[in-house]
Amino acid sequence: MTSRTGRHFLHIPGPSPVPERVLRAMDRQVIDHRGPEFGVLGREVLEGCRTIFRTKGPVVIYPGSGTGAWEATIVNTLSSGDRVLMFETGHFATLWRQMAARWGIEVEFVPGDWRHGVDPAVVEARLAEDRGHAFKAVMVVHNETSTGVTSRIPAIRKAIDAAGHPALLLVDTISSLGSVDYRHDEWGVDVTVSGSQKGLMLPPGLGFTAISDKARAAGRSNNLPRSYWDWEEMLKPNANGYFPYTPATNLLYGLREAVAMLLEEGLDNVFARHQRLAAATRAAVEAWGLEVLCRNPDEYSPVLTAVMMPDGHGADAFRALVLDKFDMSLGAGLSKLADKIFRIGHLGETNDLTLMGALSGVEMGLAAAGVPHQRGGVLAAMASLRSGLDG
Amino acid sequence: MTSRTGRHFLHIPGPSPVPERVLRAMDRQVIDHRGPEFGVLGREVLEGCRTIFRTKGPVVIYPGSGTGAWEATIVNTLSSGDRVLMFETGHFATLWRQMAARWGIEVEFVPGDWRHGVDPAVVEARLAEDRGHAFKAVMVVHNETSTGVTSRIPAIRKAIDAAGHPALLLVDTISSLGSVDYRHDEWGVDVTVSGSQKGLMLPPGLGFTAISDKARAAGRSNNLPRSYWDWEEMLKPNANGYFPYTPATNLLYGLREAVAMLLEEGLDNVFARHQRLAAATRAAVEAWGLEVLCRNPDEYSPVLTAVMMPDGHGADAFRALVLDKFDMSLGAGLSKLADKIFRIGHLGETNDLTLMGALSGVEMGLAAAGVPHQRGGVLAAMASLRSGLDG
Amino acid sequence: MTSRTGRHFLHIPGPSPVPERVLRAMDRQVIDHRGPEFGVLGREVLEGCRTIFRTKGPVVIYPGSGTGAWEATIVNTLSSGDRVLMFETGHFATLWRQMAARWGIEVEFVPGDWRHGVDPAVVEARLAEDRGHAFKAVMVVHNETSTGVTSRIPAIRKAIDAAGHPALLLVDTISSLGSVDYRHDEWGVDVTVSGSQKGLMLPPGLGFTAISDKARAAGRSNNLPRSYWDWEEMLKPNANGYFPYTPATNLLYGLREAVAMLLEEGLDNVFARHQRLAAATRAAVEAWGLEVLCRNPDEYSPVLTAVMMPDGHGADAFRALVLDKFDMSLGAGLSKLADKIFRIGHLGETNDLTLMGALSGVEMGLAAAGVPHQRGGVLAAMASLRSGLDG
Amino acid sequence: MTSRTGRHFLHIPGPSPVPERVLRAMDRQVIDHRGPEFGVLGREVLEGCRTIFRTKGPVVIYPGSGTGAWEATIVNTLSSGDRVLMFETGHFATLWRQMAARWGIEVEFVPGDWRHGVDPAVVEARLAEDRGHAFKAVMVVHNETSTGVTSRIPAIRKAIDAAGHPALLLVDTISSLGSVDYRHDEWGVDVTVSGSQKGLMLPPGLGFTAISDKARAAGRSNNLPRSYWDWEEMLKPNANGYFPYTPATNLLYGLREAVAMLLEEGLDNVFARHQRLAAATRAAVEAWGLEVLCRNPDEYSPVLTAVMMPDGHGADAFRALVLDKFDMSLGAGLSKLADKIFRIGHLGETNDLTLMGALSGVEMGLAAAGVPHQRGGVLAAMASLRSGLDG
Repeated sequence: MTSRTGRHFLHIPGPSPVPERVLRAMDRQVIDHRGPEFGVLGREVLEGCRTIFRTKGPVVIYPGSGTGAWEATIVNTLSSGDRVLMFETGHFATLWRQMAARWGIEVEFVPGDWRHGVDPAVVEARLAEDRGHAFKAVMVVHNETSTGVTSRIPAIRKAIDAAGHPALLLVDTISSLGSVDYRHDEWGVDVTVSGSQKGLMLPPGLGFTAISDKARAAGRSNNLPRSYWDWEEMLKPNANGYFPYTPATNLLYGLREAVAMLLEEGLDNVFARHQRLAAATRAAVEAWGLEVLCRNPDEYSPVLTAVMMPDGHGADAFRALVLDKFDMSLGAGLSKLADKIFRIGHLGETNDLTLMGALSGVEMGLAAAGVPHQRGGVLAAMASLRSGLDG
Repeated sequence: MTSRTGRHFLHIPGPSPVPERVLRAMDRQVIDHRGPEFGVLGREVLEGCRTIFRTKGPVVIYPGSGTGAWEATIVNTLSSGDRVLMFETGHFATLWRQMAARWGIEVEFVPGDWRHGVDPAVVEARLAEDRGHAFKAVMVVHNETSTGVTSRIPAIRKAIDAAGHPALLLVDTISSLGSVDYRHDEWGVDVTVSGSQKGLMLPPGLGFTAISDKARAAGRSNNLPRSYWDWEEMLKPNANGYFPYTPATNLLYGLREAVAMLLEEGLDNVFARHQRLAAATRAAVEAWGLEVLCRNPDEYSPVLTAVMMPDGHGADAFRALVLDKFDMSLGAGLSKLADKIFRIGHLGETNDLTLMGALSGVEMGLAAAGVPHQRGGVLAAMASLRSGLDG
Repeated sequence: MTSRTGRHFLHIPGPSPVPERVLRAMDRQVIDHRGPEFGVLGREVLEGCRTIFRTKGPVVIYPGSGTGAWEATIVNTLSSGDRVLMFETGHFATLWRQMAARWGIEVEFVPGDWRHGVDPAVVEARLAEDRGHAFKAVMVVHNETSTGVTSRIPAIRKAIDAAGHPALLLVDTISSLGSVDYRHDEWGVDVTVSGSQKGLMLPPGLGFTAISDKARAAGRSNNLPRSYWDWEEMLKPNANGYFPYTPATNLLYGLREAVAMLLEEGLDNVFARHQRLAAATRAAVEAWGLEVLCRNPDEYSPVLTAVMMPDGHGADAFRALVLDKFDMSLGAGLSKLADKIFRIGHLGETNDLTLMGALSGVEMGLAAAGVPHQRGGVLAAMASLRSGLDG
Repeated sequence: MTSRTGRHFLHIPGPSPVPERVLRAMDRQVIDHRGPEFGVLGREVLEGCRTIFRTKGPVVIYPGSGTGAWEATIVNTLSSGDRVLMFETGHFATLWRQMAARWGIEVEFVPGDWRHGVDPAVVEARLAEDRGHAFKAVMVVHNETSTGVTSRIPAIRKAIDAAGHPALLLVDTISSLGSVDYRHDEWGVDVTVSGSQKGLMLPPGLGFTAISDKARAAGRSNNLPRSYWDWEEMLKPNANGYFPYTPATNLLYGLREAVAMLLEEGLDNVFARHQRLAAATRAAVEAWGLEVLCRNPDEYSPVLTAVMMPDGHGADAFRALVLDKFDMSLGAGLSKLADKIFRIGHLGETNDLTLMGALSGVEMGLAAAGVPHQRGGVLAAMASLRSGLDG
């Protein structure tokens, strides 16, 4: 309990603010996870997930985090000694790679500068070279939460196809699902990994994997040990809306409400809203004379914007000041970007005025911290927002 | 349930946003209003009210609205045919006068331009003329919610004393209590009227009267009929924390939490915060080239700022546009100010970034509505806020 | 905050337990009471009330208590010096009579033994004698919360008609509405008074009056002063879903949800459920060898059961023991029944097993307090409940 | 949303009813899991867990279920091919054994009749025979949720010591922690596994492992692959109250409140309360003429009571009837006990009257289902409860 007054501005790139409706839906007695009322709930949320992931296939919901869903993906599809192709797009791609290594996967990790997404041409080239189809999977982070760079999954799919390569395509959408247009089936993704606390507007505590037939088939012959994350154990009771072990019921209440909210707004509207807020944020950054970390406009993230600090100014001191004086949380630079960038989340339960409050906090913070910049980023953001309005 | 995304910006001058802590405190089972647990609650909130009203005397809490507390004040102190002195400071002063008239009170209503507070010199002059002490009460609205003008109660007290007049001083603090420095005992107020939904940060549903000995004595001999609002009926069971009829228990839960929050922040800090936010708002208005309704800087309201629309531009169309495009509620002009002003609330559970979001919404709204103005009000507001920060 | 474990058993005859759904509906940000979203809410709850009161006419909703709605009824229909006919059915009838007296009404108060409801034959006789139609109103408490006796309104209506008397029929349904079959229009009631915290399953804080054309007409020529409670001031803005002063918005959120719940269950099912629970309670009382206060089986209350303590055993010590040992609140005897009875509420959000928990607490309490009784009341209650089940 | 009226009686042996205070504590905005406020929360809940597990060593909290904590225990301490000693005490012991097998562990599974706990004599005998110390661990379920039998951990500890065997002692307390006396350090347990949704009174979604130095040392040389569940990755950031991946923040809010509630009541009082409720339940079962599944009075579970159905009467039809007619959920018989028993949970947020409501529902259900029994179990339960009261 803080004595702070008014609403904390939570502008990290997730967990994102949880809507009042979702919190209230979760604030309800737990029910018997083997009773008939639960079966209705279970079927509803599993179906809702299929709609959000845009798949006709199964989506598995775990009590766990997105990290757990990473692990689920590996242990259900790969075998120790398998080769996979991954890309150094940032901190989370690096963490996923480390996890794969822990499971005995041999990762070819294409180096990157943390300012670009996955290059589809490189995907095609590497796979084309792999005549023996040693690569069992291409593993990609859709939206790199550490950098604000979004890789282009459809182009990567095309690259794999152009190379005629049978590798599985495994995609992490932890920070993009529900915020950025994404189509599991249409884009031919084999496993889509996600979590609850970003575009789905839930508290953290659920991990997801959407699974293609091909991925599921791979799981029938791979050799990694597993129990908790095992898809087949899940899918059996899921058919009737139940789970093999006690599910996180109250988060499922929230999931039902969050899916309803996304569909009420319309997924296309949700995605367009994220684009508008991201464009306004970049307009502010540009007007301040600061630099967005992401170099390629085709890869700008609709979810967050990473901003580079001018030389000689630490991002962490700046963030601490903003937290102290304006009660706003901004995202830190992670790993090799530590203290060099700050990240502004503009995802989930966010609207124009909340964003303007946040950008005002950044602008006041820059001034208070003595960071060189030009005033008026907020004016540029307002102009950008207004140009995005109908009429 | 709306499909709007993100938090609605509620910037009317009350009801003000209710803190998460207060809503959660209210979201609890009702208890036996005659049982021992209730007695503890009752004593706690009655004591808490005394702290907030800054009185050692009794504060009566009604299930009702501020309007009910107006009525309670009249029926407990005056008799039909009594003369009182009131001042046309705005819409709410006018309504209170109409209520008094309905109870057979003869109101001398000093005309006003709705842009100034009560003039202490006029108070003194009128009372000095009243040699026969026909005026039984001076009735003043502390903060005129319809205009954003705050009358100076200590100066009015002095004026009454200077005239040597025994009239009761009855003050409406519905929109000031908990936001603006106020001292029932020290300022010699006889009845202080208030409500729950402004500076106390509660939902509407409670009315309050703080009562001086003199006011209570007046109630022993006045002749207006009453039952529900009768002070004496209340004060008897209040002594032990109980009420003569079923109290609004869950609002009392909220009141307990709200008082705790105000005291955690410190009342002086709360008042200073309101002053800072109000100053920033006026800085924005000035930078836009618009006019604040209140003419006297000594009477600027810390609670709300009423802004005059340029000729030929209706405030209501502007407000409707802001609601539609930016999901923000602004206050309307009331009665003779209808369509001529809009009111920005900056009270209660509000902080710097929330205010900046709101002011950004006004600035974008002015542009979208084609209202002549200069850009950059938000920059002026940020400069004002920063100048108010420590260090 | 108590360190008690588990749910408190709130078995006073109101406030009744508030359903989780209602509390959660109220746990939501307040909205602009002059904005379009409010208009929708207002129209919805006003229409919902008409359904529950079973009237096509207006229902006025006050921030206030049922006591306030009593006062509203008096001040909107009667004049000082008017004669009315009332009946001493218990504590609340007596309080209403005292209130009427405070407003200068001359009450003919038919004495009663607090164990019977209003006798329609007496109504007819008194009115028949009143050739000059001096009685302006017959004022009746439908369900006497202090005694557990329900007066028969249709028979009283018939009695008035049989006497050919034009008196208004004013009925207090504070503890019956939503629990006991009641029909404002069909039964020719002129004003129906109610409150939020009983059958409507809301926290306290709202008072209601349903108004016939005849009652409204009476209000156009009566002479009692009023402002807060004035119907005409309410009905004007109510037409569009608004209120003349700030309404208790969050209680209205709860009201919307509570009406939805009552209609989902079906009013007839709600009433039948109350009858079942009441019958089971009386079966337990009988098996214990104790006496129900209400003497006339046609007047048994479906809402509460008042139980007489054996001579020499105080009800209040018994209730205190039950509260201390079993964390259950029972209703006290009021006024002349003080310490002589205890009251078991079985209204609102209550079901078979909750009632059985409560009755078990009574039976264990009787034993622990050394009150002479026969064991097995709970068995009788279970038999009664089972006989009421379908199939 | 069901149209059922009143509180559902959730009397499965977990998830248990979540207290209003815990639900409300969780109904709060998520915070930055890398910010200073989170560090305070993290340290608080980690310290709170140590108090509840009665250990000075680390407790790891996972987003996940108790099943996940089983897996964490295995992968952090054992190697493929390791031998362990387990006991067929019921369904959950069997599931844990299957999980171990999936990880390549060779389980010696001592057969059991599902009506007894682990026999310490057998533990000692088996370990004494194991001169080569092939057994790396003894894995025991403290409270078998499927049978209502509680194994005696201190005696098992003594048996291991008597055999002079170095095997780790791994104990599942998923359904006992917070309900049954348990002492991780004092009893020399190496890993204690638990979950959130039973005695901790939280919704499901957290798994726990308390870890001895010896267990942690084992994890430094075992060979099972792991990432998500890896202790060392957790313990590093835990030192400052943080987590290596996004924690289930809102469940941690709830955990903080639940720990506070347990300590307010006092752990010893909590355990005694469970014993009282369990004894009353068994008294009812005996009076009905039915049989408790657990054969050994020293092993009666304080958490749940499994009741055997008379021959020819299916437990599932009975449970379905109870759910339908009385809105109570009872636990099913699992696996080889399917349809043969029903289980009554009496754990967590439960008190005397709630239990009496539940037992009344069972007694009415037995009658309604035509199950042969003697009336009056509820009387026996009341007598038992009263004998357990002070004074």
